[in-house]
Amino acid sequence: MSDLDRVLATVDADLDASLERLFAFLRIPSISTDRAYADNCRQAGQWLVDDLAGLGLGAKLNDTPGHPIVTATSSLGAARRVLFYGHYDVQPVDPLNLWENPPFEPKIIEGPNGVKRIVARGSSDDKGQVMTFVEACRAYLKVTGTLPVDVTIMVEGEEENGSGNLPPFLETHKNELKADVALVCDTSMWDAKTPAITVSLRGLMHDEIVVTCANRDLHSGYYGGAAANPLHVLSKIIAAVHGPDGHIAIPGFYDGVVEPPDAVKAQWEALGMTAESFLGPIGLSQPIGETGRSLIEMTTSRPTFEVNGLWGGYIGEGAKTVIPSIATAKISCRLVAGQDPIHIRDAVRAFFRAHLPTDCSVEFLAGDGSPAVAVSHDNPNLAKASAALADEWGKPAVVIGAGGSIPIVGHFKKTLGQDALMIGFALDDDRIHSPNEKYDLASFHKGIRSWVRILAALAN
Amino acid sequence: MSDLDRVLATVDADLDASLERLFAFLRIPSISTDRAYADNCRQAGQWLVDDLAGLGLGAKLNDTPGHPIVTATSSLGAARRVLFYGHYDVQPVDPLNLWENPPFEPKIIEGPNGVKRIVARGSSDDKGQVMTFVEACRAYLKVTGTLPVDVTIMVEGEEENGSGNLPPFLETHKNELKADVALVCDTSMWDAKTPAITVSLRGLMHDEIVVTCANRDLHSGYYGGAAANPLHVLSKIIAAVHGPDGHIAIPGFYDGVVEPPDAVKAQWEALGMTAESFLGPIGLSQPIGETGRSLIEMTTSRPTFEVNGLWGGYIGEGAKTVIPSIATAKISCRLVAGQDPIHIRDAVRAFFRAHLPTDCSVEFLAGDGSPAVAVSHDNPNLAKASAALADEWGKPAVVIGAGGSIPIVGHFKKTLGQDALMIGFALDDDRIHSPNEKYDLASFHKGIRSWVRILAALAN
Repeated sequence: MSDLDRVLATVDADLDASLERLFAFLRIPSISTDRAYADNCRQAGQWLVDDLAGLGLGAKLNDTPGHPIVTATSSLGAARRVLFYGHYDVQPVDPLNLWENPPFEPKIIEGPNGVKRIVARGSSDDKGQVMTFVEACRAYLKVTGTLPVDVTIMVEGEEENGSGNLPPFLETHKNELKADVALVCDTSMWDAKTPAITVSLRGLMHDEIVVTCANRDLHSGYYGGAAANPLHVLSKIIAAVHGPDGHIAIPGFYDGVVEPPDAVKAQWEALGMTAESFLGPIGLSQPIGETGRSLIEMTTSRPTFEVNGLWGGYIGEGAKTVIPSIATAKISCRLVAGQDPIHIRDAVRAFFRAHLPTDCSVEFLAGDGSPAVAVSHDNPNLAKASAALADEWGKPAVVIGAGGSIPIVGHFKKTLGQDALMIGFALDDDRIHSPNEKYDLASFHKGIRSWVRILAALAN
Repeated sequence: MSDLDRVLATVDADLDASLERLFAFLRIPSISTDRAYADNCRQAGQWLVDDLAGLGLGAKLNDTPGHPIVTATSSLGAARRVLFYGHYDVQPVDPLNLWENPPFEPKIIEGPNGVKRIVARGSSDDKGQVMTFVEACRAYLKVTGTLPVDVTIMVEGEEENGSGNLPPFLETHKNELKADVALVCDTSMWDAKTPAITVSLRGLMHDEIVVTCANRDLHSGYYGGAAANPLHVLSKIIAAVHGPDGHIAIPGFYDGVVEPPDAVKAQWEALGMTAESFLGPIGLSQPIGETGRSLIEMTTSRPTFEVNGLWGGYIGEGAKTVIPSIATAKISCRLVAGQDPIHIRDAVRAFFRAHLPTDCSVEFLAGDGSPAVAVSHDNPNLAKASAALADEWGKPAVVIGAGGSIPIVGHFKKTLGQDALMIGFALDDDRIHSPNEKYDLASFHKGIRSWVRILAALAN
């Protein structure tokens, strides 16, 4: 039996213990965007440091102005080194009443088709994915006492909140973080049977827009009919963003957008994604994107404008006949290759200012962003990882773009000068960012086995 | 010295004690629309019952399926009886951070021009107003041992929440509530020096509109660009309600609207209300109502459609890149003479249904309403009350319409068969329903004195 086979057999034999460790990690409510959970974020980071130190890695909790960053480094003298990236922070859990099981009490629950799922906030995004790699290293070390490649593991705690403190950390630690290839585990498979390596990600620009009309909330009896209502004003501007053809009407929004080569579009066409298969499970039937674009284009190669949250006036129980003074929208734009986040931020702001009626003012409270990234198709490690995945899953990995954003991938390229292979085992129905987030037990188990194979493949 | 003068002198001498009682009443957070405050509502009712019983009135806390109704009756054998109406419930206090003084810790604070103000939630709407009448009765009873007219006092606890339990209460108690005239104290003066008797009120229809797109919240990376966003959908429909000329585009919305006689419009014209005087203090300059209508028309004789609250998606701290499943709007329409609340509710609902795109559904959760009311101009008590007010304030009372709604006034007419005189001492800058609600000390003091004079006048 080869080392590789013995390690894989150990992964299988130790799966229950691996799950126990993951569950302990999932129980920590490390919601990064809400300051109330700051202690829990640190606790999650420390949990991981302790676990990695137990493997004999040089593990450390690195303080930042925000949540700390976990690093762990092996010093085995291997010929090659990989840098692994993931995040231990998770999304907020509201609306809490829609969770069938408390979000931080992980459970194995059998899905409708008998598939076992790990259900908890962070199970898929990203603690479950992080632990596939950690468990692969653990099995290798247990069986062989070493690893095929040296590893540097970096797991941050602010991915769901813009990763603001990671770029300066990369800058100051770039020598220690040098590696032959970066591996990022925060993406999905094509489907439950088809592994995928993601080579492009949309960028993100988010902003918070506050429209003010009167200098205080008004009684709708006294003032109704005469006084401007910021909820009406904000609605009118938002309504003007998308034309009836789904095109975004903000001047300059599409400046510089790069169209994928026809060959790539043809490959996407062949994947046969339909509105029924993609939108059906979420209760929708009709894509609302630009007329004439395919679903894959709408969700990976075309930019978006989305209102992620909107509020104003009385939103408690019962009725209150108020004309509010203020209305607020949290918006975000998914960006594609060729778009500059600052240009987009300014274009969005100009659009809101231009549509503002008399007596209203607008403020913008956020405006952060990161550009889209595209990883080189001829990175030599791509072929090696692809072959390793094919060995595990019995079919070739598809090479795709993703609609989501992992800002750090762009910084890997810019600061460390290296491409990252984005390999993950999440599925599109994992409900990440939503109530009842899950990670298939098979994603976790075969994910660990996949990393065992990839570590072996990258040694050569 | 006449009885009247001695009573007025006693009002002046006892003002501090009157304020102490009002402050005790104001300290009870009787927010009717939020079930969390149900005990406080009962507590406020009981406080008033105890106070009225102390005056020797037959006072009672009447249970209802909602908050209880206070009644108190004198049995002095007077030739005439008045029914006084007010409410002890108050509006919610959010946004709490905008209050300069805690809303339920009443204080006398000097305003910018040296005018003393009672600052607290409910100071003006309506506990302060209720206590002007109670204190007038107290002074009369103290000085003369009797009242010029018998009084029936009815103070409800659900005015800010639709007064749903008052109509059946009126129906079952109509014999006990019989009186020669009803007096409603929940309105404003024309200005700080000019008393007013209000003879018409706009009605109200309110509804809660829930738009659902996907069957769960979505990750805007995976689904953004393809999946419908209910915040966009709701914004588009709200944006379509008002045309650029301020006209409401809902088919059938203006059906049956009665135009006031030209003579009435001329009287309003003469009051010289300007955008500067009316909107200036709230930081606005331009009326947004229908082109060609005066401010008084916009706010009293023309109907409105207003979004009072809107929310959906992530509204906490930080950013969350979600496409929500659900977006909700609380809306209300102010109605004028000739409009039927049910017809308006159905017209609004039909408009939302007609504008709903594929894949979205809409639910309506409220849809309550009450029509506008107009009190007869030739009610004989109008002249008597008007003369009494002129004696107190040194100038005639103006007879006006109000933009707000007091649903109970319609029920007085329908169930008890009597018109109500709406006389109140609030001012337009009282910030009712808003942070920092206040009631001028003069409103309270001269309000008490006004009721003393009105009680005397109505005896004849």
